[in-house]
Amino acid sequence: MSHTLTMHPDRLFPADAGTRAVARALYQNVKDLPIISPHGHTDPAWFATNEPFANAAELFITPDHYVFRMLYSQGVSMESLGVPTVDGAEVETDGRKIWQRFADHYHLLRGTPSRMWLDSVFSEVFGFQQRLDSGTADAYYDRINEKLATDAFRPRALFDRFNIELLATTEGPLDDLAHHRTIRDSGWGGRVITTYRPDAVTDPDYEGFTDNLAQFAELTGEDTSTWTGYLNAHRARRAFFKSMGATATDHGHPSATTANLSRSEAEALYDTVRSGRHSAGEAELFRGQMLTEMAGMSLEDDLVMQIHPGSFRNHNEFVFQRFGRDKGADIPSPTGYVRALKPLLDKYGREPALEIILFTLDETSYSRELAPLAGHYPCLRLGPPWWFHDSPEGMRRFRQQATETAGFYNTAGFNDDTRAFLSIPARHDVARRMDCAFLAELVADHRLQEEEAAELAVDLAYNLAKQSYRL
Amino acid sequence: MSHTLTMHPDRLFPADAGTRAVARALYQNVKDLPIISPHGHTDPAWFATNEPFANAAELFITPDHYVFRMLYSQGVSMESLGVPTVDGAEVETDGRKIWQRFADHYHLLRGTPSRMWLDSVFSEVFGFQQRLDSGTADAYYDRINEKLATDAFRPRALFDRFNIELLATTEGPLDDLAHHRTIRDSGWGGRVITTYRPDAVTDPDYEGFTDNLAQFAELTGEDTSTWTGYLNAHRARRAFFKSMGATATDHGHPSATTANLSRSEAEALYDTVRSGRHSAGEAELFRGQMLTEMAGMSLEDDLVMQIHPGSFRNHNEFVFQRFGRDKGADIPSPTGYVRALKPLLDKYGREPALEIILFTLDETSYSRELAPLAGHYPCLRLGPPWWFHDSPEGMRRFRQQATETAGFYNTAGFNDDTRAFLSIPARHDVARRMDCAFLAELVADHRLQEEEAAELAVDLAYNLAKQSYRL
Amino acid sequence: MSHTLTMHPDRLFPADAGTRAVARALYQNVKDLPIISPHGHTDPAWFATNEPFANAAELFITPDHYVFRMLYSQGVSMESLGVPTVDGAEVETDGRKIWQRFADHYHLLRGTPSRMWLDSVFSEVFGFQQRLDSGTADAYYDRINEKLATDAFRPRALFDRFNIELLATTEGPLDDLAHHRTIRDSGWGGRVITTYRPDAVTDPDYEGFTDNLAQFAELTGEDTSTWTGYLNAHRARRAFFKSMGATATDHGHPSATTANLSRSEAEALYDTVRSGRHSAGEAELFRGQMLTEMAGMSLEDDLVMQIHPGSFRNHNEFVFQRFGRDKGADIPSPTGYVRALKPLLDKYGREPALEIILFTLDETSYSRELAPLAGHYPCLRLGPPWWFHDSPEGMRRFRQQATETAGFYNTAGFNDDTRAFLSIPARHDVARRMDCAFLAELVADHRLQEEEAAELAVDLAYNLAKQSYRL
Repeated sequence: MSHTLTMHPDRLFPADAGTRAVARALYQNVKDLPIISPHGHTDPAWFATNEPFANAAELFITPDHYVFRMLYSQGVSMESLGVPTVDGAEVETDGRKIWQRFADHYHLLRGTPSRMWLDSVFSEVFGFQQRLDSGTADAYYDRINEKLATDAFRPRALFDRFNIELLATTEGPLDDLAHHRTIRDSGWGGRVITTYRPDAVTDPDYEGFTDNLAQFAELTGEDTSTWTGYLNAHRARRAFFKSMGATATDHGHPSATTANLSRSEAEALYDTVRSGRHSAGEAELFRGQMLTEMAGMSLEDDLVMQIHPGSFRNHNEFVFQRFGRDKGADIPSPTGYVRALKPLLDKYGREPALEIILFTLDETSYSRELAPLAGHYPCLRLGPPWWFHDSPEGMRRFRQQATETAGFYNTAGFNDDTRAFLSIPARHDVARRMDCAFLAELVADHRLQEEEAAELAVDLAYNLAKQSYRL
Repeated sequence: MSHTLTMHPDRLFPADAGTRAVARALYQNVKDLPIISPHGHTDPAWFATNEPFANAAELFITPDHYVFRMLYSQGVSMESLGVPTVDGAEVETDGRKIWQRFADHYHLLRGTPSRMWLDSVFSEVFGFQQRLDSGTADAYYDRINEKLATDAFRPRALFDRFNIELLATTEGPLDDLAHHRTIRDSGWGGRVITTYRPDAVTDPDYEGFTDNLAQFAELTGEDTSTWTGYLNAHRARRAFFKSMGATATDHGHPSATTANLSRSEAEALYDTVRSGRHSAGEAELFRGQMLTEMAGMSLEDDLVMQIHPGSFRNHNEFVFQRFGRDKGADIPSPTGYVRALKPLLDKYGREPALEIILFTLDETSYSRELAPLAGHYPCLRLGPPWWFHDSPEGMRRFRQQATETAGFYNTAGFNDDTRAFLSIPARHDVARRMDCAFLAELVADHRLQEEEAAELAVDLAYNLAKQSYRL
Repeated sequence: MSHTLTMHPDRLFPADAGTRAVARALYQNVKDLPIISPHGHTDPAWFATNEPFANAAELFITPDHYVFRMLYSQGVSMESLGVPTVDGAEVETDGRKIWQRFADHYHLLRGTPSRMWLDSVFSEVFGFQQRLDSGTADAYYDRINEKLATDAFRPRALFDRFNIELLATTEGPLDDLAHHRTIRDSGWGGRVITTYRPDAVTDPDYEGFTDNLAQFAELTGEDTSTWTGYLNAHRARRAFFKSMGATATDHGHPSATTANLSRSEAEALYDTVRSGRHSAGEAELFRGQMLTEMAGMSLEDDLVMQIHPGSFRNHNEFVFQRFGRDKGADIPSPTGYVRALKPLLDKYGREPALEIILFTLDETSYSRELAPLAGHYPCLRLGPPWWFHDSPEGMRRFRQQATETAGFYNTAGFNDDTRAFLSIPARHDVARRMDCAFLAELVADHRLQEEEAAELAVDLAYNLAKQSYRL
């Protein structure tokens, strides 16, 4: 027996009829606004080459760690889902088999945002009317592949169909941005920009750090064996990224630690980490100093700064050795901001021209640290709920815990932060619905007037992202 | 003036009429399912001897630290409630007086789960129709005692009446399990099993640790003066517990710290803690190493492993000296899992045959650490909200904060974890109602279809506990 | 276009019609109860001199860091809002311009409690019927100033109109309490009492600590160069404050650390901090020891003890240098209670005659630490949600997270804790509404009977504050 798949028009709205009516009215005004996606991890090659996507398994399962981590957690091996190994050891390559395995375990995703995003894509992008399960797996696989082979499902066509006004990707400091150049030169109207993510040359614990510095020198013509040359190399790459559309940088550190060393201390520390003979504390201090340096450069070149701290990367040693990075084994850890950010804020915190967007994986910081900081410092804004918290309950907690102290206007609108291109409309739709639901509740208990809520709904869905990322 | 006592059929269901109707429908299908109680602290002697319970005060007040801690917090002395002292100093022994004192302060429990469990027992087990208060105290006391003297209120009769399919107790490693043997040999059909809780020989800070090791040797014939002999003694006791029905072990440590020492390091550490000349850090490291050893043995004998970390035991020094352990003075403390569990997980985390059920008293870990860990590692499941959080609001927070990342199928069903035998049906009923309420909300805002919710309701009420504990 | 300003009679009540009806009924019985304000920061000079307030800008903006921090966070300079500088550097003095600037940015406060308090004052105290915005700013400014010049808007008239039964202010240990004496001698019936807040002589990091000790000696005639003399000086000032109505002390420390040193250790530590050559750790230890000493003195003189820990004061160094303390740059930090309070509790925790009211800025401690502690120790009560958490969502979280373990009767009623005198009725009204809303939800899902909820509503709005502060 197969089950109907329908995306209910009132999904995610409050159950109370009066409140739901308000939410529905607010949503009517924002649902068709263009999508601003100012932070994410889609592959620019898709839009540069505009090649069709390969097949359902390679599109939806193999690269999506949200999906395969859940199946792995219930005993399904990553090999059987076609996740490639580091050493090229054999894994399942039959897309149909992988898809069937996925469909057989689809119930594991009940109650998760992945389930909602996938159902949205199946229903709204592919037009399925039956739910995915063991019995419908084959029909799904065939139809998806059929569609993917058509022009209407090539990346640029979907980009246009999704009503994306702007999409930012994220590249490392050594990237040549060739795909971005191709896109720009192609005459296609889609706006795809890059973001400067220099972790590979700012984090001494990054794989290949010293080699990366050498390549950094080569690319820029700067002498990265000196602190001055190293900083100038950043300036050069930031300018290059900016020329390819970047309006922001991004920094994925284990903590939010910042530092404010004297020039001579910074030079000495740079020599230490460059030598590879640094302690864990020195690596942390260097990353912290680099956040402060990046803030200083943002004041020079106007790039918005994003800080994404607090992920314990590659927690599962076995999975890391066999499958590499980004395999669903990154786990949040407690993250403090109050002491951590003080060195940077002491130096630059009062500059209204600086803009830093803070993210967190530690929800306890919303009401205790992040909202109080953002509700005071001119340079700080709060990014939307991130990663595991980019979900209906996560979004609700963020608004409930941050709004009363930070207000709405110290938040930065929505980011989808995804590699899963097809899910972008569904993700923005969830955010718009949850924000309308939250606003409707404020209207229902008379904390906000409906006309103010209507203005806020548009700000949260569209304006704040544009303003915050200087788009 | 006395007040009516009624247990409303819709209690704990959402207020919105449509959502409540869904919750009610889901609940209809689970309310009469047999009770699986895979973790708790009832006394096996009750079921072995089947003697009647003594009286209302000894049944409901003196042993229930949830109850007397609240009265103590408002200035009622433990002596006046009949809580026995360590040195035998005199306390109140008149059950009627204790009961009256309790009734006079019953309003202190408003809004607590104890109030709900007690009212359920009074209404549903004893048939009271007036609320307990100063005026009804005497009538309550008499009627409860009268009923307790009847055969229908003996432990085995209640066990059957409560529709308990399985009840697990918890015993220390030195227990002879005589009561379990008696139950097994009695021909009575009730299934009461034990659980291996070796804290007395794995925690160097446990009262009488070195004496316990001597007794451990005697019981097993192993030489516990060597690391190998000590580990083998565990193997022997685990096998014995397993022969008395155990399917699980349980570990109540101050933190979730684990370790993965080399054999020689472990041997040296064992010598140190055995000598009693260990530091606090060495005690912690030893407990951590023992969790990893226990995980290894679970892979040998298939016992499910439970970890209950994070309680600061006996916080009130005065109460501990005068009344001993478990007197309502255990206080939760911040508990980290991400770094703490890594040594164990590095060694055994990828084994789908291993099963570890994690509990917490630190709710901040639900969305930040536990759900991300359980949503990845094959060996991990999340236990239900524990102790202070085994309550309607606590259950709601658990589902709201854990489900989106861990899903439902990485959770382990409900545990009542109680010494209060009579409250077991009420506790499971609260859990079933809260799960139905949560599922109904997902149905109401179209995150889940009603047919899926119905399947989940049964899984959460019954199937997951059986599967998780390998029953 | 200007917008209507109305305070809806059902504001903050649950949306569900049945639950709302219960909340409304509960609220009817508490809305007109007299206000007990047992902890706050209004200026006793207002009630001593009974001079009119100056103008709208000086009343509502310049002193209210909740308001100007939000504008500052969005790039509005504090100078342009008339916030005075430490060195007297020029700032905006034109009240009308400041008011207009505030009105132009009033939308930034959407969703914050300040918005609700301000709207309440505008509507209910001043009778405005149009919302404040750029267009109505002038009319607001004129009308407020006009009213403030009338007798009906002098401090004592407002005090009476607000139905305040008791108002506590907070003074430092060196204060001569002249205003309180004036009030007491004036024959006016309003009850305004003081609170002993000795941070200036108990915190070695306080500005002017050693000078403060000298003045402390002078005021009391005690020799504060000895530990005994210093403690006796406290006893003398506590007695003096008590003679001016104080029933409580208050302690604003960076953490909840307490200590229980031997007499000789305490003497030596006092010598160290008096010399000014203490480490950060010694300052912390001294503050901790002083909390324990204050608890001991509370047992002597019956003053209730309040602990307000966990604020990182003056986080923005630039703002601190330019504008001084209390400028919206205090940020909460993680605060532990379990280990921190143990030394004090080991010494005095079992004394039912002692009363300590605990506050927190770290909401994670509600369910993990504070409710378990208050639900056990006779001397502990929980203060209401504090500062950033004195808000509808903050109040809801407090009740949801603390009630099930601590009950209602280990909480201390509401504190407004404000400098903003005119907002006091609005703040108590928010608390009463939120408590009625919470109780209504317990009634709606049958966790509480309506008659019990009605009793509790009065206890939470009035009785608990009087009892807890021994008024």
